Amino acid sequence: MSLEEYGYRGELARILKEHNISVYDRILIEKDGFTYEGILMPKPELSHPDTVIIKLDNGYNVGISIGPNVRIRLLKKGKPALPSPPKVVPRPKEDLPHVALIGTGGTIASRVDYKTGAVYPAFTTEEIYSLVPELSNIARLDMHLLFNIFSEDMTPQNWVKIANKVAEFIQKGVDGVVIAHGTDTMGYTAAALSFALQNLPVPVVLVGAQRSSDRPSSDAALNLISAVYTAARAPFAEVVVVMHGTTSDNYCLAHRGTKVRKCHTSRRDAFRSINTKPLARIYGSKKIELICRDFRKRDKNRKLKLVAKFDEKVALIKTFPGMKGDIIEHLIDYGYHGIVIEGTGLGHAPYTLLKPIKRAIDEGIAVVMTSQCIWGRINMNVYRRGVELLRLGVIPGEDMLPETAFVKLMWVLAQTRDLDKVRELMLTNIAGEINPRSEPSTYPPMEV
Amino acid sequence: MSLEEYGYRGELARILKEHNISVYDRILIEKDGFTYEGILMPKPELSHPDTVIIKLDNGYNVGISIGPNVRIRLLKKGKPALPSPPKVVPRPKEDLPHVALIGTGGTIASRVDYKTGAVYPAFTTEEIYSLVPELSNIARLDMHLLFNIFSEDMTPQNWVKIANKVAEFIQKGVDGVVIAHGTDTMGYTAAALSFALQNLPVPVVLVGAQRSSDRPSSDAALNLISAVYTAARAPFAEVVVVMHGTTSDNYCLAHRGTKVRKCHTSRRDAFRSINTKPLARIYGSKKIELICRDFRKRDKNRKLKLVAKFDEKVALIKTFPGMKGDIIEHLIDYGYHGIVIEGTGLGHAPYTLLKPIKRAIDEGIAVVMTSQCIWGRINMNVYRRGVELLRLGVIPGEDMLPETAFVKLMWVLAQTRDLDKVRELMLTNIAGEINPRSEPSTYPPMEV
Repeated sequence: MSLEEYGYRGELARILKEHNISVYDRILIEKDGFTYEGILMPKPELSHPDTVIIKLDNGYNVGISIGPNVRIRLLKKGKPALPSPPKVVPRPKEDLPHVALIGTGGTIASRVDYKTGAVYPAFTTEEIYSLVPELSNIARLDMHLLFNIFSEDMTPQNWVKIANKVAEFIQKGVDGVVIAHGTDTMGYTAAALSFALQNLPVPVVLVGAQRSSDRPSSDAALNLISAVYTAARAPFAEVVVVMHGTTSDNYCLAHRGTKVRKCHTSRRDAFRSINTKPLARIYGSKKIELICRDFRKRDKNRKLKLVAKFDEKVALIKTFPGMKGDIIEHLIDYGYHGIVIEGTGLGHAPYTLLKPIKRAIDEGIAVVMTSQCIWGRINMNVYRRGVELLRLGVIPGEDMLPETAFVKLMWVLAQTRDLDKVRELMLTNIAGEINPRSEPSTYPPMEV
Repeated sequence: MSLEEYGYRGELARILKEHNISVYDRILIEKDGFTYEGILMPKPELSHPDTVIIKLDNGYNVGISIGPNVRIRLLKKGKPALPSPPKVVPRPKEDLPHVALIGTGGTIASRVDYKTGAVYPAFTTEEIYSLVPELSNIARLDMHLLFNIFSEDMTPQNWVKIANKVAEFIQKGVDGVVIAHGTDTMGYTAAALSFALQNLPVPVVLVGAQRSSDRPSSDAALNLISAVYTAARAPFAEVVVVMHGTTSDNYCLAHRGTKVRKCHTSRRDAFRSINTKPLARIYGSKKIELICRDFRKRDKNRKLKLVAKFDEKVALIKTFPGMKGDIIEHLIDYGYHGIVIEGTGLGHAPYTLLKPIKRAIDEGIAVVMTSQCIWGRINMNVYRRGVELLRLGVIPGEDMLPETAFVKLMWVLAQTRDLDKVRELMLTNIAGEINPRSEPSTYPPMEV
């Protein structure tokens, strides 16, 4: 196939031809003091006309804009290393469960990168069935690309859009919903949907991939199969994150949306349930093994209640040694409505923060304490500093993740600014975010 | 013994007598809407004349100031539940190693609470030998109470004082130094000392306790014995944290000071080595089992180099969905010299931060990227956002803990404000804070 057929046209094609470079050749690009070495990939249709896509040796694709001060060089001629998608697209049987698949962005859609290059997923039902044929034996998929953004750019407004689209599909009567999402902030979105989608009748499953699917070590296929199977078959009607449970391809874990956190920058088993066990092990489309028996049961007759509002004037800040009051003073002056503090230990903060925290609460700002330890529970009755903070009106975050407490406070403040009511809601377990008591067995063992 | 002999005098003794309350009775105190139930404990000499100390059922001591609007009630007469310290104080042999023990505060000194009540450690050599007689077989201890503060109030100035005191002891020729420290910010102090105490000749060991030592489940004794043994005998001359390795009393772990983090609010094995293995298992005073062979060897002839300066104008902030530029704009306007960002995933931040980050760097402020994942390594060459941030001049934090990157940036900025030099130092491994490559095996397994 020619450069043009792979999407490279005009000046870009001219430059590549000048260097005798075809798609799948190994090339070197020098730009702005950076050097990129990798395989030239097919170009996404929606990508900028100046951009070439190369697959780095770490398996990631990167788009580089080629301008006058860029040097480009052929290292080695190559050929397509990847199989073409099958020509015959499998079709699911009519009696299979009906699952909605909502695309929002992220690496999970990057098996499609093989066709489009890297960045823009071509998210059609046919493509998904072509790429992961197993899916056609699990569910009738109903695909919808809602938007396609880096998950670090996800905002509360995006959460609302996702929640609305999920509600729309549930009203249509689907048996479950899968949301493809970038992994960076998937935990935050999972928490947001857990609060926004009250009284769920069917499972809502967030899924992502830590490595794009054309890498040998990709987690995309098992994650997607497990996620669709969970949406189609799981007995629980909860918002969950389904991601690899180990570094092998043996099973995924379904984590409750309010208790899950990305704990590793790159590993496939990066997602962890914190202060609780995962809901289930998902062995691809083979079986669902329940770990936890305490969940809302699937019931298509249950009526979903959508409470999809978030107050964006909430900040999540972390305490540190030598911290002064200026950051909290800024948040007050800037008009924030709520502050979630990642304090130390059982829920402490430096004495230098007592005065600004008092001022914040006096001015009607909700202040919630969580712990930068990540694991464990806030207990502010133990040491003097905790008691002092409680007396100022700080709301203890119990065993909530800081990220979940942050999302919950946005959700609560969108309903009420009355601090007594905010306190009451923050201390009430609404979507599994607060355990009545912590289970010590959920702290991962240290292997040395 | 009378109330007065236990430290309760004047009006306080009168009130207690009026209610027929003696020390070790179970009492109930109602104050400001809070209820405290526990055992009345002996009163520390330095505590406020109005304060009673009670031991709550969770094992913690708490001091409550008794005023006119406080209700106090006897629930049950009691008697001392704790053994008295032995009358004969053991004496260490003259040929034992010489270890300095520096007190800075925290629960670790709370076995002394048995005598003094709760809050103020009576930190003399005799008391320590009385309370933990095993220590007299390990080392000749040289005790120094430097200060006694909650670790959440520890500041860079305190780090400097600790570093100076350690240097003083090392110049006197001790075989090792132990620092008793509150657990909340022990990881930060350990990192600070790792940078401040260059070219160490002997081990410097931070130790704390998660539970005070008069509780059945206390970790104080094993931690202290292991810490003193490490200081006296370990083959490595590094700054380490020695804390419980499991929830049983079988061994402690020695964690490298730049790679350790408190990961649980209350468990005894709360401290974890992140992105690296611990240096050693310490079985009390029985043996030291090396896990890692790559360390600076103990050598009393090596000359310590003290670089104990920290620029306090550094902030540690965390990104969150919907985050706007205002917090970074505030840090610029307020005159900060450095910002460590806990971004998402491989080192990303919302696009809304690009402009303020550019402004910060343009104005000479060092900006370092770390990951809120905690485990793993920053890699900003993979996705477009990372590349954009790198091009603005953001310094990638490699596999440094956010807390360690924060401490290191304070240390680096105290030496130079030249951004090129700051970058070079931040990217250089100075005290084990950067691994040349990450070891996947150091991520704790998920037990489900």
